[in-house]
Amino acid sequence: MKRDIDVLVSEVGPRDGLQSIQTVFTTDGKMEWIRSEAAAGVPQMQVGSFVNPKLLPQMADSAEIVAQSILIDGLTVSALVPNMKGAVNGLAAGAHQIGVVMSVSEEHNQANIRRSVQESLDGFAEIVAYRNEHPEYKDQIISGGMATCFGCTISGPVPVKDVMKVAEGLMERGAQRLNVADTVGYANPKQVRDLFTELYRTVGKDVPVGAHFHDTRGLGLANVFAALDAGVREFDSCLGGLGGCPYAPGASGNIVTEDLVFMLEAQGMKTGVDLDGLLQAREIMERQLKGEPVHGTYINAGPPKGFTPATHAA
Amino acid sequence: MKRDIDVLVSEVGPRDGLQSIQTVFTTDGKMEWIRSEAAAGVPQMQVGSFVNPKLLPQMADSAEIVAQSILIDGLTVSALVPNMKGAVNGLAAGAHQIGVVMSVSEEHNQANIRRSVQESLDGFAEIVAYRNEHPEYKDQIISGGMATCFGCTISGPVPVKDVMKVAEGLMERGAQRLNVADTVGYANPKQVRDLFTELYRTVGKDVPVGAHFHDTRGLGLANVFAALDAGVREFDSCLGGLGGCPYAPGASGNIVTEDLVFMLEAQGMKTGVDLDGLLQAREIMERQLKGEPVHGTYINAGPPKGFTPATHAA
Repeated sequence: MKRDIDVLVSEVGPRDGLQSIQTVFTTDGKMEWIRSEAAAGVPQMQVGSFVNPKLLPQMADSAEIVAQSILIDGLTVSALVPNMKGAVNGLAAGAHQIGVVMSVSEEHNQANIRRSVQESLDGFAEIVAYRNEHPEYKDQIISGGMATCFGCTISGPVPVKDVMKVAEGLMERGAQRLNVADTVGYANPKQVRDLFTELYRTVGKDVPVGAHFHDTRGLGLANVFAALDAGVREFDSCLGGLGGCPYAPGASGNIVTEDLVFMLEAQGMKTGVDLDGLLQAREIMERQLKGEPVHGTYINAGPPKGFTPATHAA
Repeated sequence: MKRDIDVLVSEVGPRDGLQSIQTVFTTDGKMEWIRSEAAAGVPQMQVGSFVNPKLLPQMADSAEIVAQSILIDGLTVSALVPNMKGAVNGLAAGAHQIGVVMSVSEEHNQANIRRSVQESLDGFAEIVAYRNEHPEYKDQIISGGMATCFGCTISGPVPVKDVMKVAEGLMERGAQRLNVADTVGYANPKQVRDLFTELYRTVGKDVPVGAHFHDTRGLGLANVFAALDAGVREFDSCLGGLGGCPYAPGASGNIVTEDLVFMLEAQGMKTGVDLDGLLQAREIMERQLKGEPVHGTYINAGPPKGFTPATHAA
């Protein structure tokens, strides 16, 4: 299925949303969510994470979820992996895209995956080599995910040059795309525009770059606007902002998919996503929660009078 | 008091916030709020509205509030007026700035103040003439406020050329500044940047222009960022986002002062406002509420690690 879209909305709720809450969705429940959101036109979804199931039981069925999701027509299925073991499993499950994550901040990377940044880059190269050694995986994309690009809860400010160094390191080691994450919700729009402008200067305009923002300090959509300015055309988001609670200290949810789609469509940018369909998918997701809060404004405010989404315009 | 600031934050809570809720603050309670927020460094506040007190009992003490507020060192005190009667009272009370409001949308203007746009422009000219006839008011500024600049709940989309026509009409009739309002929370950032760019082209770069955004669809701060790009350096906001509830249908609160200040300061723009002082003022405001919800993210998330506000930087 070829899509006529201007901006790629990448739903990460089944991974980033679900890994942050207590409730464990059943495999069928996850698939109902994924299918309904794909039916609404969402072109890409991060459906799971190949991590130790003892650490994240919510993600234990990721192989099964990937296997079922790749049967959905036109959906690009991605999965997160922290290391070679995850990559081996993710590739075997058939994910179209494998996101290998590391932190730009040394302290954060050590705390999270007990590796130096250099060791993580070496690990990335090994994963790419593994994929390349297996011809059956040749169409599966390896994406380099960079966490804490806009600041770190442990070390504070993260220099732009550190982000560039990691980005170059990932590209040299065979990354086919990059994902730039404001993991802890520190970014402001000026910083975002400056960093992505510098990033394209560093790695070139042709590298597909996705942005991953959290709305911790209310700047998520402002950051999207700033990133659009710099040329970014792919954004991670989470239906209903699942996984973060702006009314609890330290909370940090992803930007809200339906609010993101509304903003883009209002700005004349086609996402291919139907807002009504998205709200139906949200209902399916929400029904499975056990008291976890959901977020967003479009769900209550609805469209402006006379609003025509770009996707539905002639 | 001369202030070294890059962006003017104009608190409108004592007017826009309070007129939207049930609880009627006492005059002393309002003044405690106003004084504490001025002490935090907020340089301008819209403290009341000279309207029929039968329609808005919350605003009945506006003359007294203005009289007390103008005694606060360095604070620019503004008041909203819908017509000549309000202007006469607002000027007599001593407000530094009188904001005369009208809607760009004919339907909205008729519904709200039972006048055509042309009649409102004529009324604006009469108010300016009245001020000019009274030498004792010569330093009091008349601002032209334009509502529904980004869309109307009655008529839908509002053409940019209609906004330009009203802006030119106000300038020709002696407006010393303009306020551009997204009264119903319809604006998106692209639209905002385009409209303000066109506005400066139309009225000239030297006219002080303020922007008034609501966060109804979660785009308030994205719209601020877009307006900054176009050159806007004055924003209305409301402490705690009082007056709107994003979790109720049709809700429409102002952008949140403390979130706005955080964004600007994080971007290196001096507001002169101290964030801790602002949260203290918020507590004073919040104590007087009777169950009305308040909003915002900074209050819960706090500053990023290592954050230095521009105002406090060397």
